[in-house]
Amino acid sequence: MSVNTDFDLIIVGGGPGGYNAAERAGHAGLKTLLIEKETLGGVCLNRGCIPTKTLLAVAKHYHIARDSKEFGVTSENVSIDWSQAYKRKVKTVRALVSGVKTKMKKNGVTVAEGEAKFTAGNTVEVNGEKYAASKIMIATGSRPFIPPIPGADSGKVLTSREILDLKEIPETLAVIGGGVIGMEFASMFAEVGSKVTVIEMLPEIVPSLDREVASLLRERLSKKIDFKLNTKVEKIEDNKILFSSSEGNGSIEADVILMSVGRRPSVENMGFEDIGLDFSPKGIVTDEKMRTNLPGVWAVGDCTGKSLLAHSAYRMGEVAVADMLGRNERMRYNAIPGVIYTNPEAAGAGITEQQAEAEGLDVIIEKLPMQYSGRYLAEYGQEKGFGKVIVDKKTRALLGVHLIGGTCSEIIWGASALIEMEMRVGDVREVIFPHPTVSEIIRETLWEVPAEYENY
Amino acid sequence: MSVNTDFDLIIVGGGPGGYNAAERAGHAGLKTLLIEKETLGGVCLNRGCIPTKTLLAVAKHYHIARDSKEFGVTSENVSIDWSQAYKRKVKTVRALVSGVKTKMKKNGVTVAEGEAKFTAGNTVEVNGEKYAASKIMIATGSRPFIPPIPGADSGKVLTSREILDLKEIPETLAVIGGGVIGMEFASMFAEVGSKVTVIEMLPEIVPSLDREVASLLRERLSKKIDFKLNTKVEKIEDNKILFSSSEGNGSIEADVILMSVGRRPSVENMGFEDIGLDFSPKGIVTDEKMRTNLPGVWAVGDCTGKSLLAHSAYRMGEVAVADMLGRNERMRYNAIPGVIYTNPEAAGAGITEQQAEAEGLDVIIEKLPMQYSGRYLAEYGQEKGFGKVIVDKKTRALLGVHLIGGTCSEIIWGASALIEMEMRVGDVREVIFPHPTVSEIIRETLWEVPAEYENY
Repeated sequence: MSVNTDFDLIIVGGGPGGYNAAERAGHAGLKTLLIEKETLGGVCLNRGCIPTKTLLAVAKHYHIARDSKEFGVTSENVSIDWSQAYKRKVKTVRALVSGVKTKMKKNGVTVAEGEAKFTAGNTVEVNGEKYAASKIMIATGSRPFIPPIPGADSGKVLTSREILDLKEIPETLAVIGGGVIGMEFASMFAEVGSKVTVIEMLPEIVPSLDREVASLLRERLSKKIDFKLNTKVEKIEDNKILFSSSEGNGSIEADVILMSVGRRPSVENMGFEDIGLDFSPKGIVTDEKMRTNLPGVWAVGDCTGKSLLAHSAYRMGEVAVADMLGRNERMRYNAIPGVIYTNPEAAGAGITEQQAEAEGLDVIIEKLPMQYSGRYLAEYGQEKGFGKVIVDKKTRALLGVHLIGGTCSEIIWGASALIEMEMRVGDVREVIFPHPTVSEIIRETLWEVPAEYENY
Repeated sequence: MSVNTDFDLIIVGGGPGGYNAAERAGHAGLKTLLIEKETLGGVCLNRGCIPTKTLLAVAKHYHIARDSKEFGVTSENVSIDWSQAYKRKVKTVRALVSGVKTKMKKNGVTVAEGEAKFTAGNTVEVNGEKYAASKIMIATGSRPFIPPIPGADSGKVLTSREILDLKEIPETLAVIGGGVIGMEFASMFAEVGSKVTVIEMLPEIVPSLDREVASLLRERLSKKIDFKLNTKVEKIEDNKILFSSSEGNGSIEADVILMSVGRRPSVENMGFEDIGLDFSPKGIVTDEKMRTNLPGVWAVGDCTGKSLLAHSAYRMGEVAVADMLGRNERMRYNAIPGVIYTNPEAAGAGITEQQAEAEGLDVIIEKLPMQYSGRYLAEYGQEKGFGKVIVDKKTRALLGVHLIGGTCSEIIWGASALIEMEMRVGDVREVIFPHPTVSEIIRETLWEVPAEYENY
């Protein structure tokens, strides 16, 4: 079998890590082959971030249509048609997949659809053809983790993948796992009328969030969602979940059961063992330039097991491409933003209070209710929310920003920029924030830092 | 008459420039007196930014309640009660005024209600009492400009002040002046059912916006608003506006006429002439530390005639207080964000395309439709919008960011931070934006800068 050596770079996996890297590589002039086994865009675009945001937008519209009396707006017979929501989801995903294809064309990227298998560090086989290149990028993503609970694999239990295909709103929904994915589905279905129960083994939901943010998020969601914390699922029998907690054993039944206890790197059945790649079920081992142990082979995104987020994958891909081009960039994990698109939204960048504690950092922590923002008050009234900043006591550098309430998902990117640029309290105070916006809460909260810590 | 010399700092005017400076001064330990003749919070809080945003939130809810079929959400008999909207507005303003009062107390600021008159550079009389201090700050704001058009002062013509007190939605509304204030009211009332006409003397609305943004804004609003550009109002007779344009003369009638052709600094009847202050009807002359020509006297906010925006006033006040404390800060105008809260919203920071042209700058301009953002597509579908960046061709520094569509009002603050910090294209590309958000459009648009201009 002849080997195709037309390409400078072969990327395995067309999700955010892979397709974005292909675009950047093409932009810089590298001849690139992108291999995807299912649909371009990966989980994020086809079965993750994008479809959920489309459905969450539906839930938001339904909520506003029903519940705007306080604003002087009333409606009758508000109804929701989930099959129409589903259609809109399909349309949105289709438009974006087509957008990714256009980007690939524009940047001269060749796309191959098929399953890739490594036959050597620099050789990949797909659809019966072999390709070799001096630069290989592995971006194989991740898949939902199914824990070894009896009945979990019965087929009655859905993952985030299958639940997106529901054409009707379930009357009752049980969500096993109160992380970001589980909570977004829980919030969405509760908003559109499902009776939702969330079962979480830990004492608090969404451990990636700052603990106070997570706590307020749960408090606000508990009006619509039943939470069972510190609760372990023992067994699933058909539509019945049997669980145990310090209060004893119990069970609930639900029309739909969602398993969302995390994701695992996709590293199997691709020949990684045969080529001597350093990897484990926890992911492919990489350095700060996303290099693997094999020369000319980089790995990016979820398959590295580090920061399983689409935007982390984007950046990892860019860092790897920069390295290929001899540019000195490195992957930094200290300012990666995190967003949860529940109602209310929450978002954070930089270290959380619990991380500061765990690392024994000497920090100043300040907090203000969102109601300090005139715009928040105008749009959200007395709905609870807050802004929180974490500042290094010695250097006054901004280390963390955490928000809950309003459209904080769209505000947080600037906080990542500030942290990334190692700005200090005094520097941020000089930035002019538009008034009136919710974003001002960041500046206001930084002004809460006592005068004695100002370093003029 | 004895003179009270208890205070380190006397601030005349309790709007954003004044109350924020009072808070900062108190925070730093200055004994501060704040004098306000009407209500703490000034125009912005009581009769400007905040009440309009409250009513715009009402309009937004009404719009969503009526028009969410695309999302699978339908309603019947959607109605709006403007008196309830008015009540919510009053409640919001009241909460914020009380918040400002609390902040003043917390920072040890004394508030005097009454009209101030200067009797010497460092002496102010209010309520029959004289106060002298080594530091004086003038923050007297601005008022609506009434142009010398016959009939403009008849009492039938409303300004932005009176139109906020309407308890009913006018059937027809004519807005004279298509600037930010005029367009926000036009958009709001058009959304809730008024038949709205905007009369603008210039060939395009909102000259402070980037021209392409303004043009798309007008295009999108023209579905609901009738625009008469290049049109001069000659006379107002009762509810009738007589105008002229290159196409000849004409007239329209409207239940409500709003005059919104700009604001002028409030510099009259305060004794400024007597104390030798350097000022004109265009404002009080200040340097970059907000010092006036008189020693120990600073001026901030609208009364300086520079950048008539609440957040500019905030910052000017802080710069002045920093100067009082011997800290070396200066007022910079190059990264002040501008937002218009119409539907759609538009926002910008840094130079516009027309400014770049006027200054003869050698720049790279890139633009992407908002549909590049998956979240935008999920939430706003095919509604037109775009992101635009202006980059210095030689240094690759980011000079301007302009957005229209989505919640760009909450996104733009980060762009101000980037421009303020003189970040270059390569620097911004290293910032991790959360996915999927509309904010990513900034990063994506920066990636459109051709590879040959990359300065690695």
